[in-house]
Amino acid sequence: MATLFSRYGTSMVKIGIVGGTGYTGVELLRILANHPDVEVACVTSRGEAGRNVAELFPSLRGFVDVAFTEPDPALLRTCDLVFFATPNGTAMQSAPELLAAGVKVIDLAADFRISDVALWEQWYGMTHACPQVLGDAVYGLPEINRESIRKAQLVANPGCYPTATILGFLPLVEEGIIDTSALVADCKSGVSGAGRGASVPTLMAECGESFKAYGVAGHRHLPEIRQVLGRAMSGEPGLTFVPHLVPMIRGILATLYGRLVKEGVDLQAVYEERYRDEPFVDVMPPGSLPETRYVRGSNRCQIAIHRPGDGDTLVVLSAIDNLVKGAAGQAVHNMNLMCGLPETAGLTSVALSP
Amino acid sequence: MATLFSRYGTSMVKIGIVGGTGYTGVELLRILANHPDVEVACVTSRGEAGRNVAELFPSLRGFVDVAFTEPDPALLRTCDLVFFATPNGTAMQSAPELLAAGVKVIDLAADFRISDVALWEQWYGMTHACPQVLGDAVYGLPEINRESIRKAQLVANPGCYPTATILGFLPLVEEGIIDTSALVADCKSGVSGAGRGASVPTLMAECGESFKAYGVAGHRHLPEIRQVLGRAMSGEPGLTFVPHLVPMIRGILATLYGRLVKEGVDLQAVYEERYRDEPFVDVMPPGSLPETRYVRGSNRCQIAIHRPGDGDTLVVLSAIDNLVKGAAGQAVHNMNLMCGLPETAGLTSVALSP
Amino acid sequence: MATLFSRYGTSMVKIGIVGGTGYTGVELLRILANHPDVEVACVTSRGEAGRNVAELFPSLRGFVDVAFTEPDPALLRTCDLVFFATPNGTAMQSAPELLAAGVKVIDLAADFRISDVALWEQWYGMTHACPQVLGDAVYGLPEINRESIRKAQLVANPGCYPTATILGFLPLVEEGIIDTSALVADCKSGVSGAGRGASVPTLMAECGESFKAYGVAGHRHLPEIRQVLGRAMSGEPGLTFVPHLVPMIRGILATLYGRLVKEGVDLQAVYEERYRDEPFVDVMPPGSLPETRYVRGSNRCQIAIHRPGDGDTLVVLSAIDNLVKGAAGQAVHNMNLMCGLPETAGLTSVALSP
Amino acid sequence: MATLFSRYGTSMVKIGIVGGTGYTGVELLRILANHPDVEVACVTSRGEAGRNVAELFPSLRGFVDVAFTEPDPALLRTCDLVFFATPNGTAMQSAPELLAAGVKVIDLAADFRISDVALWEQWYGMTHACPQVLGDAVYGLPEINRESIRKAQLVANPGCYPTATILGFLPLVEEGIIDTSALVADCKSGVSGAGRGASVPTLMAECGESFKAYGVAGHRHLPEIRQVLGRAMSGEPGLTFVPHLVPMIRGILATLYGRLVKEGVDLQAVYEERYRDEPFVDVMPPGSLPETRYVRGSNRCQIAIHRPGDGDTLVVLSAIDNLVKGAAGQAVHNMNLMCGLPETAGLTSVALSP
Repeated sequence: MATLFSRYGTSMVKIGIVGGTGYTGVELLRILANHPDVEVACVTSRGEAGRNVAELFPSLRGFVDVAFTEPDPALLRTCDLVFFATPNGTAMQSAPELLAAGVKVIDLAADFRISDVALWEQWYGMTHACPQVLGDAVYGLPEINRESIRKAQLVANPGCYPTATILGFLPLVEEGIIDTSALVADCKSGVSGAGRGASVPTLMAECGESFKAYGVAGHRHLPEIRQVLGRAMSGEPGLTFVPHLVPMIRGILATLYGRLVKEGVDLQAVYEERYRDEPFVDVMPPGSLPETRYVRGSNRCQIAIHRPGDGDTLVVLSAIDNLVKGAAGQAVHNMNLMCGLPETAGLTSVALSP
Repeated sequence: MATLFSRYGTSMVKIGIVGGTGYTGVELLRILANHPDVEVACVTSRGEAGRNVAELFPSLRGFVDVAFTEPDPALLRTCDLVFFATPNGTAMQSAPELLAAGVKVIDLAADFRISDVALWEQWYGMTHACPQVLGDAVYGLPEINRESIRKAQLVANPGCYPTATILGFLPLVEEGIIDTSALVADCKSGVSGAGRGASVPTLMAECGESFKAYGVAGHRHLPEIRQVLGRAMSGEPGLTFVPHLVPMIRGILATLYGRLVKEGVDLQAVYEERYRDEPFVDVMPPGSLPETRYVRGSNRCQIAIHRPGDGDTLVVLSAIDNLVKGAAGQAVHNMNLMCGLPETAGLTSVALSP
Repeated sequence: MATLFSRYGTSMVKIGIVGGTGYTGVELLRILANHPDVEVACVTSRGEAGRNVAELFPSLRGFVDVAFTEPDPALLRTCDLVFFATPNGTAMQSAPELLAAGVKVIDLAADFRISDVALWEQWYGMTHACPQVLGDAVYGLPEINRESIRKAQLVANPGCYPTATILGFLPLVEEGIIDTSALVADCKSGVSGAGRGASVPTLMAECGESFKAYGVAGHRHLPEIRQVLGRAMSGEPGLTFVPHLVPMIRGILATLYGRLVKEGVDLQAVYEERYRDEPFVDVMPPGSLPETRYVRGSNRCQIAIHRPGDGDTLVVLSAIDNLVKGAAGQAVHNMNLMCGLPETAGLTSVALSP
Repeated sequence: MATLFSRYGTSMVKIGIVGGTGYTGVELLRILANHPDVEVACVTSRGEAGRNVAELFPSLRGFVDVAFTEPDPALLRTCDLVFFATPNGTAMQSAPELLAAGVKVIDLAADFRISDVALWEQWYGMTHACPQVLGDAVYGLPEINRESIRKAQLVANPGCYPTATILGFLPLVEEGIIDTSALVADCKSGVSGAGRGASVPTLMAECGESFKAYGVAGHRHLPEIRQVLGRAMSGEPGLTFVPHLVPMIRGILATLYGRLVKEGVDLQAVYEERYRDEPFVDVMPPGSLPETRYVRGSNRCQIAIHRPGDGDTLVVLSAIDNLVKGAAGQAVHNMNLMCGLPETAGLTSVALSP
């Protein structure tokens, strides 16, 4: 095979990826491989150090020609921006040092998503390693924090369920249209959301051809959604959040319920107005039914707002690809903003459907 | 292959199946093939008349040795009981004549599910052919109507979503534990629920690896659920019902939400007590998370009741196999009751998992 | 839920299952739960000892009311028959002691499948623990060894691929119809064949929506197939065996190729004659195309023989459920034979399709 | 949603697509939406004329802003190049007129794939409408016919199975390494290969969780493969071709068998040498096992060559995405060649994996 795909120049933004063997890591590599303005300088993995990235992920053959390396702080400090595609609790160990060296940092895990340290420690079951930088972290949902993200050095990339849920509820909450004391978010995710770690429950023979709820008693994305919606409404919403596992690989559909408390509102117009200038939020026409396949592989959130039977319960449908708009794509969007690149660079591919 | 499976005797209950080419029809045949007390006298199909049933459904080779026949009223009248596994609007054409001939009738479609003729005609878009027998039809949910079913000549077999939803909500509604003005039923079904007709949306390339809601504006199972829950509470519940399509073949999970209005109730005990004598409703231990695979191929409803974060929103999870407890299995249960057979006859097979 | 399913009496065959947490173990429990003549006395698991079996496998709730126990040789010795549903290399550690105590043993793994100790040790990478009993082990394919199985105390239950492949090739090899120097077996299996152990390659996000070959350089079922076909032809066949992983849970389809060397044979008649008295081999009509769903959950092998374009390459299609006819179902068949029970007892359920 | 994706200029190649509602049509639109050098002037569909393309395919919202139109010969004649993404038998009705008008034509169906008119008519069951232009049609497999394609006005885009099979066998056949009298191609395809027409066999409830062979008696891709391999070897190969249906949406894996007749050849080197300059054929390292997911959505064929047990049967594994390298991607590759565009333009996206 001829290598016709190399495009890296010398004035590129220099990127480091810590933890490149999980699904968010390989998805970052997939997106960055066609990004015109960046160069991936290193991809670290303790477990796979020395092995070529494309050997583990043959889809990257000819696109990514680097080997995994042991995390090397000196090398990472030479990067313009470092992505942490690591488990919770990892980025917070190294972020302060990189930030001190002037490196921009985006954490795709949860270390910097919750501002309240005590709340974070309660839900994540560990002591936070760098509460002192938590205040500087910007929650990386561009539809809310675009300008802060542009100036941020540390961005907490949102969780997948929170992205779909927040974008779906946001216009209603901002405009005081629904009763925020009893929101229901019934969310469904493909199995890639569970990560690439070996485990029995995500074996195909266990989760294929079956459907279940999980985390009903409490899921870590609950406080995250509550915090962000709370800021949008100045208060703390009452939210019941039930995640489900769908026998498919990619995609989240959030079905959101809220009781209408403000009459006479043109709901469709509210949504279209709120997201008019957003490149990655697509408010679909009235009556639409988003399907996860229509956003598969793309950095889009497709939303539809319904009011069944003209009753007082609203139903919002919000669909994303959990690995793209719910993780790596949104991280690249944040990177573009932080590095002054065109906002949609590297993110214009069309969803793969069917 | 030796035919070691024939078991038909002469004192058997004689069964007719009208419309044997759809999924509920073939599922009836699967269950009845191992039922000790019945004989399938005829399986009708206009489209496949003359063709051997096992040629169309090779899983039945050696078990079912009859050919599809044109519907023959004379032959059907000689049956003890006739199942209609036909599209909506078919059974009502023939039922009165069979009933007049003393034949018992179970309709697996919707012709006799709604008592209010006008309401039925509004949702099903046709004129009801026999409103005069509607009053005699018993809604075939044995957990509510066991004794009426035993005496009934005409049974309306419940819809799949209603079965899962009603069994899940029932104890709460009967005991006045939740606010029935704003129930939410977020339901998810495998694709066999859409039937065996050729259609683009249920092609594997369309609905595989994807997830979507449908029927948000209004689904025919909504008035059915409302009617049955309404009778249990003496009133009309406010219900938002959103069905979703899961990329799997069999199974329904209903995730049900209601606001607690009665404190100090032992919810687990309420459910266990309500279903203590029910052979086909399994109230799982506290904290359980039903999965559709655990009821695949079996006539069971597995239910778990949750109260997340000790808040005032209850979450009930209710899982069935849509083709068994949601259709053919429940129909056989009804047949057993109507014909005085042991209630669980033919219905004791274990779910196929994995 | 009422417990309406208990059927255990006192004159039952007493069964022990060693290793009940894998897919073949739970499948044995599923089948035995409806077997009229056996009682499961114990199910062992080192990892899950003390936990109720139905807690791990909720599909068995109400059917199997025992807890996993540590393997207890004294208790196992009181059984009439012990199944080993364990990894390779386990049964051979305990079998001699049980055999000495008069217990019948069926190993669902590979410890006793290969008569040639050196060959076994080469393919399985360990020293055989009891070569002295290997000579007494009968290869448990009833279609070849029915009478030996009836008298056997130790049965080696065949591998899943070998079952489908051998039954497919057997009539051709026995009758000298094809050139046995260059057989090709292109086999495809669902993921349950890989077992219930946590591993990255069988995660749904890895093997779902994808297809691959594996084990091309050499798979352990190759010497097993060669041995059995070799006995049928008095010689050693030349066989290329390539297994593939299908994104589904259950089922094997073997597509078998061989060059015709004997003209004028009625191939269909040869197959029908060979399997005329077999309850679990279904030779389908000419032109048939077996599908794995038609044998899902049933103990059947469906076979079709083709001669495309009247050329000299024959194509045999052979379908089984890898967990039933390819494992637990065949083991129960062997148990029935060894214990003098009706041959099809517990094995008459119809395939679950769709 | 802001429309940030429009890129169409005035010096673009002007494209017409006839038949834009099938999977190859929408896949063309997906690929062309990010192609830097083309403008889609019209997309025709008799059934959907007047409807916006993105309404039917919401993945294209914001990328493709045209409505389906009735086929209009006058408009099509103004295009530089017209793709026919239509059923077999359609392109041949209109191609001569377009060719006469100087328009370039690529047929993604089979009308121009077989040079022998009689053979074509026998396999496709219709009279060929324009045998006079058949001689000018170039078989659009760039790895064989690159230079002819550059000069061609009419290109027959290869079938999906032929693409995977021919690329896999080609080096062995060209170099006389295998016995071409008895080739076996055991091929497996995802269900999108069956098209977007409503049909029972491709319903998810029919083909999900199951595996089968089809077309064993004879499939239209057989004469196509024979013709192309025959030209590479100067003769007619003996080929047994058995296609199978995999329960997934995209992807083909061809497992190819041939007997070695030339010793001492470095097989890996032969493949690497043959495809050294090919941008879309990736010869993987020795021992590799291609998986269809590694080419999902990309225009690549990944190939591995094996010689199991150092025997005399070679096994070649060849993986493509049937809708990309097997259809629309290859068509765009051909378009690039025919229009003098950079060969890989629009085709550099990385496979979507997981």
